[in-house]
Amino acid sequence: MNIRQMNDTIVALATAPAIGAIGVIRLSGDDAIKICNKVFNGKNLEKQKTHTIHFGTIIDENEAVIDEVLASVFVSPKSYTKENVVEISCHGSPYIQQKIIEIFIKNGARMANPGEFTMRAFLNGQMDLSQAEAVADLIASDSSISHDLAMKQMRGGFSKKIAVLREELIKFASLIELELDFGEEDVEFANRKELKERITHIQSTIDQLVQSFKMGNVIKNGISTVIAGRPNAGKSTLLNALLNEDRAIVSEIAGTTRDTIEEKLIINGLQFRLIDTAGIREATDAIEAIGVSKTMEKIQSSAILVYVFDVIATPPETVKADITELSREGLTIIAVANKMDLNPYTKQEWYVNEALPLENIVTTSAINEMNIAYLKEKLASVATYGNLIQDQSIVTNSRHYEALEGANQSLSAALNGMSQGVTSDFVAIDIRRSTYYLGLITGEISTDDLLDRIFRDFCIGK
Amino acid sequence: MNIRQMNDTIVALATAPAIGAIGVIRLSGDDAIKICNKVFNGKNLEKQKTHTIHFGTIIDENEAVIDEVLASVFVSPKSYTKENVVEISCHGSPYIQQKIIEIFIKNGARMANPGEFTMRAFLNGQMDLSQAEAVADLIASDSSISHDLAMKQMRGGFSKKIAVLREELIKFASLIELELDFGEEDVEFANRKELKERITHIQSTIDQLVQSFKMGNVIKNGISTVIAGRPNAGKSTLLNALLNEDRAIVSEIAGTTRDTIEEKLIINGLQFRLIDTAGIREATDAIEAIGVSKTMEKIQSSAILVYVFDVIATPPETVKADITELSREGLTIIAVANKMDLNPYTKQEWYVNEALPLENIVTTSAINEMNIAYLKEKLASVATYGNLIQDQSIVTNSRHYEALEGANQSLSAALNGMSQGVTSDFVAIDIRRSTYYLGLITGEISTDDLLDRIFRDFCIGK
Repeated sequence: MNIRQMNDTIVALATAPAIGAIGVIRLSGDDAIKICNKVFNGKNLEKQKTHTIHFGTIIDENEAVIDEVLASVFVSPKSYTKENVVEISCHGSPYIQQKIIEIFIKNGARMANPGEFTMRAFLNGQMDLSQAEAVADLIASDSSISHDLAMKQMRGGFSKKIAVLREELIKFASLIELELDFGEEDVEFANRKELKERITHIQSTIDQLVQSFKMGNVIKNGISTVIAGRPNAGKSTLLNALLNEDRAIVSEIAGTTRDTIEEKLIINGLQFRLIDTAGIREATDAIEAIGVSKTMEKIQSSAILVYVFDVIATPPETVKADITELSREGLTIIAVANKMDLNPYTKQEWYVNEALPLENIVTTSAINEMNIAYLKEKLASVATYGNLIQDQSIVTNSRHYEALEGANQSLSAALNGMSQGVTSDFVAIDIRRSTYYLGLITGEISTDDLLDRIFRDFCIGK
Repeated sequence: MNIRQMNDTIVALATAPAIGAIGVIRLSGDDAIKICNKVFNGKNLEKQKTHTIHFGTIIDENEAVIDEVLASVFVSPKSYTKENVVEISCHGSPYIQQKIIEIFIKNGARMANPGEFTMRAFLNGQMDLSQAEAVADLIASDSSISHDLAMKQMRGGFSKKIAVLREELIKFASLIELELDFGEEDVEFANRKELKERITHIQSTIDQLVQSFKMGNVIKNGISTVIAGRPNAGKSTLLNALLNEDRAIVSEIAGTTRDTIEEKLIINGLQFRLIDTAGIREATDAIEAIGVSKTMEKIQSSAILVYVFDVIATPPETVKADITELSREGLTIIAVANKMDLNPYTKQEWYVNEALPLENIVTTSAINEMNIAYLKEKLASVATYGNLIQDQSIVTNSRHYEALEGANQSLSAALNGMSQGVTSDFVAIDIRRSTYYLGLITGEISTDDLLDRIFRDFCIGK
């Protein structure tokens, strides 16, 4: 690993780049305190204890006061990066923030690259790579589940799990390699039966993690939930009813296709991506007409389909036919019998008893917001991963997923090798390879390229 | 003044409400440290010295870790508000920030109103009202001049000036009132001639401040600069050329009228509002055609008109006629002879020598960005207030302007009264009234209504 200009003192705005009451500018590096002290009018910052705060002014080269600020001093190694760090809390004017950063740069700091503070924290041993990655996830988290996962990962739960597996594998590899030194004597330090059992066990742990990625990805990006139905089923009203309850946490994302809109909805901490398939509006009568390829594609790639129908206008046969047509492995369908206010005596079983379990039909009157809360609960309950979070590690990062796959394949190769009686050195190589992949996750193995790839997606200032 | 729930502990996000590396949540009030301590897992914050920083976690009611944070402790009276203050530096996720604020509210804090931290700073004597108002101006400042003015005001220069005038007037009023106690004896503690001179002098100082408001307003909002010209004069190219040089500090504001666009441009720290009068594009040949009322209105309310013409296509007589037609008192016209690349031998004096001083014509080739830098300098130089900043106080706040007008009128009334020989008690009342108005500026006189009006425009968290 090269030094990556680690001796530089770096500077960046750490708070969001917009107007606020205050903004925080962060300096890190050997000279952080020294550089700040040059332009800070107040106490001598170089003589202050770590974790102390000092009032003063930042002055420019003409001795003009740029701002009254608070300077927080963190003396190495007791800081986020383990380097000397100063955080300047100034007024939240973008003009002032830019000006102060310019002054620091004129006095010897350089602009930080994205994620460079956290990269230094990693390189200086403050955290491992998976924890560093979790920092970015934590900042991006916008639901309690994505937050909990990122927090768990940042606090090292996942890293620890990987480290334990890796250590055990390293021990096995070492024992096998030791046997090679005694090659002539045919010793067996690592009992092959036991070894196979342990590797199989480790593989199943890794496998669980690999399997969790699909779920992790969903948690990170939201559970894609298509709302579809025939014209005038009350689909838009339903969408509005679902969103209105929690308008504050709704954001509108213009879809890539002109008529598809995605809205985020958080229910019990779970994030759903509600996809309004406007194409369906042009449908006339046959299920084939609904199947505009765009809409069908959306349904294909979704986890949940909310099929809305009008209890008055839609004959039960049509509903059954639609649901049968749209069903596929892995897609949970919730049928919403809407406009119940117009016909409260409709029997649900008329509609779905052959095509869908009865508990998956929800009766609503979207216009009166009747049963909307129940529909939300139903959505949350069919998103079944809720109870997995407590006790299982979930992989949310595609880089980790790939590394775990690599480790898994290497272990399969080791097991195959042993079954086929290959020499110990090949088995050792396969096990070593699996430890390489696991090491990539925590950063015990890393390259500049890898680090660049990871940290360039961070925000500047982190 | 009522207590305004000053015993409450208030909480708000102090940084910009968007994703950043970190966010800062601020608590202020008697119980700020106590409330934070309840949910802070780390050191006992109640036992920490002022101006110290402590690492720990914020936990919710289920003991779940919401974030790893730094808590900065400020013990009353050594804080911005002079109350106990804790600032929590957390990860810059809106989800986390909202969650932490919720936790504080559950534990006894309440959401701060806009500007409430600064209002408390004022009410607790940390700063006067004019300084408090400057805090908001400082945060909003986006050019070096608006920044310098706000900084000067925040650091108390303006307040001091007002306070000195006010004290002198209070002394005069007291002396006159003292005379009334000796009513029978016809004493004169305040020499009338001297008094008139002093009041006249004070009035001229106040008058200067009143006069400076027009300029202050321009500094705060930018110098309105209309770019106009006949079709195909190269106006749009010129606008682009002006903006491209400083693209980073340009922001596009959609105009109120469909075809009018305003762009901000900062030259030498001065902010210009460039107004693109698109209506002029429909003009055909006569000056009357240009005069679409919308465009003319914009020109009427602007400080500078950049009149662009095509040196090839526009006859000198037309340019002269246009400029003559558009001229008015208080409007500085800069004529831009564009497309000089096509006809480098054009003599400038052909165009303007009767309608405009020769130095106010700039030859450009906008398409080649020729002379654009010179045009910018010209713009900066005709915005003549640049050199006034150094030694003169400038009023930027309409509330101050109104108060100064009120003080001025009261002093005029006092002078008139003295000239007409009214009794001393009436003169004293007029002088007292002027001190009332001056007191409104610094907040020595204030009402709840006034404070509400001032602070409601602040951002939350300040």
